[in-house]
Amino acid sequence: MKLWEKGIQTDQQIDLFTVGNDRELDLVLAKYDVLGSLAQTKMLRKVGLITEHEKRDLINALNEILSDIENHTFKIEDEFEDVHSKIEFLVTKKVGDAGKKIHTARSRNDQILVDMNLFLKDELKTIKDQIRKLFDLLMVLAEKNKNILLPGYTHFQIAMPSSFGMWFSAYAESLIDDVILINAALKIVDQNPLGSAAGYGSSFPIDRKFTTQELDFKTLKFNSVAAQMSRGKSEKSTAYALSSLAGTLSKLAMDVTLYLCQNYNFLSLPSHLTTGSSIMPHKKNPDVFELIRGKCNKIQALPYELTLITNNLPSGYHRDLQLLKEGIIPGIQNCKACLDMALYSLQDIQVNKNILEDPKYDYLFTVDALNELVAEGVPFRDAYKIIGQKVEQGTFQSPKKTTHTHEGSINHLCLDEIKKKMDDYWKN
Amino acid sequence: MKLWEKGIQTDQQIDLFTVGNDRELDLVLAKYDVLGSLAQTKMLRKVGLITEHEKRDLINALNEILSDIENHTFKIEDEFEDVHSKIEFLVTKKVGDAGKKIHTARSRNDQILVDMNLFLKDELKTIKDQIRKLFDLLMVLAEKNKNILLPGYTHFQIAMPSSFGMWFSAYAESLIDDVILINAALKIVDQNPLGSAAGYGSSFPIDRKFTTQELDFKTLKFNSVAAQMSRGKSEKSTAYALSSLAGTLSKLAMDVTLYLCQNYNFLSLPSHLTTGSSIMPHKKNPDVFELIRGKCNKIQALPYELTLITNNLPSGYHRDLQLLKEGIIPGIQNCKACLDMALYSLQDIQVNKNILEDPKYDYLFTVDALNELVAEGVPFRDAYKIIGQKVEQGTFQSPKKTTHTHEGSINHLCLDEIKKKMDDYWKN
Amino acid sequence: MKLWEKGIQTDQQIDLFTVGNDRELDLVLAKYDVLGSLAQTKMLRKVGLITEHEKRDLINALNEILSDIENHTFKIEDEFEDVHSKIEFLVTKKVGDAGKKIHTARSRNDQILVDMNLFLKDELKTIKDQIRKLFDLLMVLAEKNKNILLPGYTHFQIAMPSSFGMWFSAYAESLIDDVILINAALKIVDQNPLGSAAGYGSSFPIDRKFTTQELDFKTLKFNSVAAQMSRGKSEKSTAYALSSLAGTLSKLAMDVTLYLCQNYNFLSLPSHLTTGSSIMPHKKNPDVFELIRGKCNKIQALPYELTLITNNLPSGYHRDLQLLKEGIIPGIQNCKACLDMALYSLQDIQVNKNILEDPKYDYLFTVDALNELVAEGVPFRDAYKIIGQKVEQGTFQSPKKTTHTHEGSINHLCLDEIKKKMDDYWKN
Amino acid sequence: MKLWEKGIQTDQQIDLFTVGNDRELDLVLAKYDVLGSLAQTKMLRKVGLITEHEKRDLINALNEILSDIENHTFKIEDEFEDVHSKIEFLVTKKVGDAGKKIHTARSRNDQILVDMNLFLKDELKTIKDQIRKLFDLLMVLAEKNKNILLPGYTHFQIAMPSSFGMWFSAYAESLIDDVILINAALKIVDQNPLGSAAGYGSSFPIDRKFTTQELDFKTLKFNSVAAQMSRGKSEKSTAYALSSLAGTLSKLAMDVTLYLCQNYNFLSLPSHLTTGSSIMPHKKNPDVFELIRGKCNKIQALPYELTLITNNLPSGYHRDLQLLKEGIIPGIQNCKACLDMALYSLQDIQVNKNILEDPKYDYLFTVDALNELVAEGVPFRDAYKIIGQKVEQGTFQSPKKTTHTHEGSINHLCLDEIKKKMDDYWKN
Repeated sequence: MKLWEKGIQTDQQIDLFTVGNDRELDLVLAKYDVLGSLAQTKMLRKVGLITEHEKRDLINALNEILSDIENHTFKIEDEFEDVHSKIEFLVTKKVGDAGKKIHTARSRNDQILVDMNLFLKDELKTIKDQIRKLFDLLMVLAEKNKNILLPGYTHFQIAMPSSFGMWFSAYAESLIDDVILINAALKIVDQNPLGSAAGYGSSFPIDRKFTTQELDFKTLKFNSVAAQMSRGKSEKSTAYALSSLAGTLSKLAMDVTLYLCQNYNFLSLPSHLTTGSSIMPHKKNPDVFELIRGKCNKIQALPYELTLITNNLPSGYHRDLQLLKEGIIPGIQNCKACLDMALYSLQDIQVNKNILEDPKYDYLFTVDALNELVAEGVPFRDAYKIIGQKVEQGTFQSPKKTTHTHEGSINHLCLDEIKKKMDDYWKN
Repeated sequence: MKLWEKGIQTDQQIDLFTVGNDRELDLVLAKYDVLGSLAQTKMLRKVGLITEHEKRDLINALNEILSDIENHTFKIEDEFEDVHSKIEFLVTKKVGDAGKKIHTARSRNDQILVDMNLFLKDELKTIKDQIRKLFDLLMVLAEKNKNILLPGYTHFQIAMPSSFGMWFSAYAESLIDDVILINAALKIVDQNPLGSAAGYGSSFPIDRKFTTQELDFKTLKFNSVAAQMSRGKSEKSTAYALSSLAGTLSKLAMDVTLYLCQNYNFLSLPSHLTTGSSIMPHKKNPDVFELIRGKCNKIQALPYELTLITNNLPSGYHRDLQLLKEGIIPGIQNCKACLDMALYSLQDIQVNKNILEDPKYDYLFTVDALNELVAEGVPFRDAYKIIGQKVEQGTFQSPKKTTHTHEGSINHLCLDEIKKKMDDYWKN
Repeated sequence: MKLWEKGIQTDQQIDLFTVGNDRELDLVLAKYDVLGSLAQTKMLRKVGLITEHEKRDLINALNEILSDIENHTFKIEDEFEDVHSKIEFLVTKKVGDAGKKIHTARSRNDQILVDMNLFLKDELKTIKDQIRKLFDLLMVLAEKNKNILLPGYTHFQIAMPSSFGMWFSAYAESLIDDVILINAALKIVDQNPLGSAAGYGSSFPIDRKFTTQELDFKTLKFNSVAAQMSRGKSEKSTAYALSSLAGTLSKLAMDVTLYLCQNYNFLSLPSHLTTGSSIMPHKKNPDVFELIRGKCNKIQALPYELTLITNNLPSGYHRDLQLLKEGIIPGIQNCKACLDMALYSLQDIQVNKNILEDPKYDYLFTVDALNELVAEGVPFRDAYKIIGQKVEQGTFQSPKKTTHTHEGSINHLCLDEIKKKMDDYWKN
Repeated sequence: MKLWEKGIQTDQQIDLFTVGNDRELDLVLAKYDVLGSLAQTKMLRKVGLITEHEKRDLINALNEILSDIENHTFKIEDEFEDVHSKIEFLVTKKVGDAGKKIHTARSRNDQILVDMNLFLKDELKTIKDQIRKLFDLLMVLAEKNKNILLPGYTHFQIAMPSSFGMWFSAYAESLIDDVILINAALKIVDQNPLGSAAGYGSSFPIDRKFTTQELDFKTLKFNSVAAQMSRGKSEKSTAYALSSLAGTLSKLAMDVTLYLCQNYNFLSLPSHLTTGSSIMPHKKNPDVFELIRGKCNKIQALPYELTLITNNLPSGYHRDLQLLKEGIIPGIQNCKACLDMALYSLQDIQVNKNILEDPKYDYLFTVDALNELVAEGVPFRDAYKIIGQKVEQGTFQSPKKTTHTHEGSINHLCLDEIKKKMDDYWKN
């Protein structure tokens, strides 16, 4: 059943091509479609476009559908083009002619805009909560392992002393930046497009402020053309935030897989977190971190896909926009799965305690030795040359101790300040 | 002159390859490098690592260099690797041994981090101000042209009535979303990385809160490893915000070039804003809008370039990161130029007043006719079929009027609310 | 069942995350996995690693599975990790211990490499055949409509006369470039990686030239490390070719949707090829071309996704590579669907014959007028100024005729030469 | 001086914005612009559009300019918009009115198409030659180091024995795939667009086959609209080939930087190939390989930049296309520099000979041990379990030898076959 059926038979092949996998993707939007229709119904009654009786019937019907959705018994069969058609069909079946009135003053264009903004808002909040859990875990691990030293690298070369406290809390603090972008995306999707209809509004005397309040949107996307233009922009803003987060997780996963390598041997994983090889019986592979890395790298391609679909299209709706769903919905699901698995796996990760005993790490302390000279009054560039020559001649002796005390150094991680910073940026 | 010269001659070819166009790009960073050194100097004195006398000399020397930079007489000659080496050279020449001490407790790694964050902060603020000017102009144009009707399209098909008031203010309201992302980027770059040294801090008892205040950063990037990880993240966050803005400007430019086409003829440009053809003497080409579109589309590739450079590198500094400058600096310059040109050109754009007189636009009013039936009590889906049949049979008569009154519709643009929304999101 | 089961229970959550949608995607690879195993079996016999009896049993078992695949009765149940495990399970069930021997001297790493190369080779050939059909149709349409004039645009401005013959055959000729890239991808995937095992070969005295011949690969990917590195490279090369093709189809679809706009009205579509609007009863939307455009634009993001997944990973297998399947398999399917729909829809597209009667197109002929002056001996730049002034003063009179006769111009389309060119590049 | 000057003053700001850095980029195209003009001149004489005398004058003038270009004395001053204007100015200055005639039957649109195709053809050939040199060097290094063992990794875990012979020749063989894509790009750019004028041909009786032969193009881009559409397509095809190559080089550089890490210590670099740290006196950083990696990763973003600029533009010239030059020209220069540096640096790279003496590499041989069992008749899956249990219990004893003899394995590198394969694909 198509909402726009005009009596001329649409070609079956065309149907298959144009509908795509909308029915499957639309399932995650069903709940939001009903919530949008509930707000629409109440508003139509408020402005007198439906009767009190019609309102009651519509609300009952919509609530029944909402129950089905929550009980996972709601389906979109092949005869329906999308979630909007299916729900309108059900409502009309339940309440008759009044069901058709629910579409007054709106179009599928603003329906999907509302659905998507409500969906993105919910998902971004979920992701934000997951980030907070990961942040908390990383901070606990940092505190717990703050005295265990680790070589710090630059250019993949042994550079200066670091520590597991430093390493775990570095990723925690980095997540704050990702929260800032999540918050920005949240603000962008927290605007009500309902009532913009096909992208140019309508002649009905609807009350868009009412639906804004009803749907708990912070504000309206006032201009109807701007509301339509937010299709793609909501998705892209979300994708930017996900990409930033994915970049952090991917780098963490790269560090972990590297540190698990026998050549580093800084970390180990319990057996239940590894997978085997079909050919090498000694292998305990960190597939879970490799897949976090891979999936997060894939997520970082998402903004480009969304940009390519929308770019250079003039203002106004184009059918191309339907394809945005195919990217953003699995992108969000992958992102949540990666956060889940990172949280799950890092809980059991084991830290190697005696790393720096290996003499190859002695050079870590050249800067400390150099700084001792500086503290004794030797100008920095001269101290640099003295130590450099010792290294060159193989006579460098490692002090094997660190007294890094400034903010953000090994012996002064500022964990409390970092927690406070997360709190400060959390709401804004 | 290289800071790390060890007496072994580095290969000339290697030099050429590794230095790249750093000297040219670094010029835009010179001012920020001096500002960072001034804060560093004051802090080194505060914690007792240099004498009061050394401090005074260093500050004088740095202020002289700052003057040269502001007077555009500062240069980075071929014998210097980058801006950091050149400034250290100048300082040392001016004040002798004390000049070498300026590098105490810092590395070029945190120097460039500071320079870049200060630079990005300044540029993002400039861009934000430019956006505001464009927003204001679009709002003036919307008010001025609010009664001039325009066809609204969906699927590139004539759809429903719109207006120039609607069209101009749609882009104004869309810019608010871009400001939200600019603000997020501003927060991300407004963190002080100075003191993280090579990415692992140092043994000097420096005071990072002091430099944070001195450089007017809102907070510290506390963790030294996190500070180093912000390389790339600052640039990407900025690039996401620029991309969002570029998407808005590119779409605006696409609309303009289309509306200037003789097949639309909705807009015209004064001759001084067009360019000609080397072969067709009648051409008045809207190159400026085509180049806004093209340059803004190019900007949207920037996050992917930055992502590709940084992706799958483990934590810690890698030389690859130097290449981020090559992308973000011209990206920002292009973005500012596009905003300038959009502002400059839209001021003189001329609007065609009699567009809807052409009978091909009659179908714009089918929805209005349909809604009249609905207002008379016909259920929406039935009204839809009635009008649909009239169109099919060629008997549809256009009402040729609009009475769109809801928030965000043609006759109720909510310009004041949109202005207020911009103000609300401006600071956050 | 996992091939690498070691008696330690792998975590269920980990399983879900690591297996992903492999079972679904692997179905398209099942046929190629069996073909690879058949070749492997024959080779193992040839070098004496299995007996003649074992060979016969294995071949029978594999052929039975192949039948099931061709009859669509083959399934990968949830207890199997992937297609490889399922097929090995079936074989072992059918023939006992000999079934286990099929994995001698190979790993899932080279199995999936073989499967993917065979799959890509087949699909690229199918796509090439579809391109040829589209090319042929476009050439027929060019011949049929060669005398119908069309305005040519530059800068979205009316520029010079063109024709439908020119327009249709332009896309035909452009497809030749896409065939060149398809052929390159075909060469790249037409190399046998079987026997590279986990990426470093094995100690078994296998005969890789035999399997190369058996599987009809043109050559071997000799070096085992190179064979493993081709994972991702095969997919990217294919994605480059698909992107090039997608760029051609997307531009064609953009032209079509624009030409269907009432402001151009150069083309029309029969009703069965359009879809309606849920709110505007007069709409006949060209969704099929919009979706070709959108899907083809999405395809152009594919190389970036594949690059992000593989980039900066050192040589050797990483689990991340599994995610390549998720991108390339639907990408190929979308590409084939777009070619199908383009072919299907263009067959019925209708061309408007009297476009140039509209006086707004008179300026199309300024260059012809100018060239007439040049033919009379006026230097080009002077003629340019004369006509330019006439246009400026509104006194330009259109000659309303074209006598373009050079190769590739309106009256000399060179359709035979273009067909010959396609034939020339077809095989190489 | 603008070719299209109409007497109305173009805005200076507009000029600055629209010309961009064309003058600088156009310098690399100057030679090709003259070559295109020489062919154009001879053709105009052949078809009688200029006199023999004019031809002689024009050819002399153009040859003088060519000399200046070759002697690097050719400049494009600020008063000229681009290379085309400057050369036309010079020619007209040298030969008077005849100079203006050179523009007969062409436009800057096809001029730049010709320039770009000739430029890309030359550069792709140069790059192909550089690839061959790198291939030859890698093959020499493979032969020289074929007996030096190296651990092979999967999942960043120690997996199976490899060798430097295997590793060097793996990259050599991978380069063959890149040559295949270079050849495809070469075919795509080897088509003559000259005469397509502004994208729709002209009324002049020009001879495009003559200029094709004159410019040594293999064939014509016949259709004038197709010729114009090749703008962007030539650049993208080149960018795909460069990206493929860049992917190979980037992975090689990643391997090298990793192998130089003290935790691997598989390779070392002579001092003149490393750079130092401004803070750590012991550092010898492999900046050159890091920058090869970074620059090659940046190159892989190029196709997306080019795609974003051209995507969703309908057929016909748009000014946006000018921006393609900004991406492809530096992209090619970076690619050549990376090839140069890879060749230069790998020559002096030093291989560590005793890597496998470290007991952590013993597990490399589990598969060999397993295969010995298989050779003794134990079914593969059972052998897998036996060795797996030994590893689990810490009782595994390494055989510490390899007898890999199949094609492409450690002891049978097939270097001759790989060389032959390169030769086979070289021409096609």
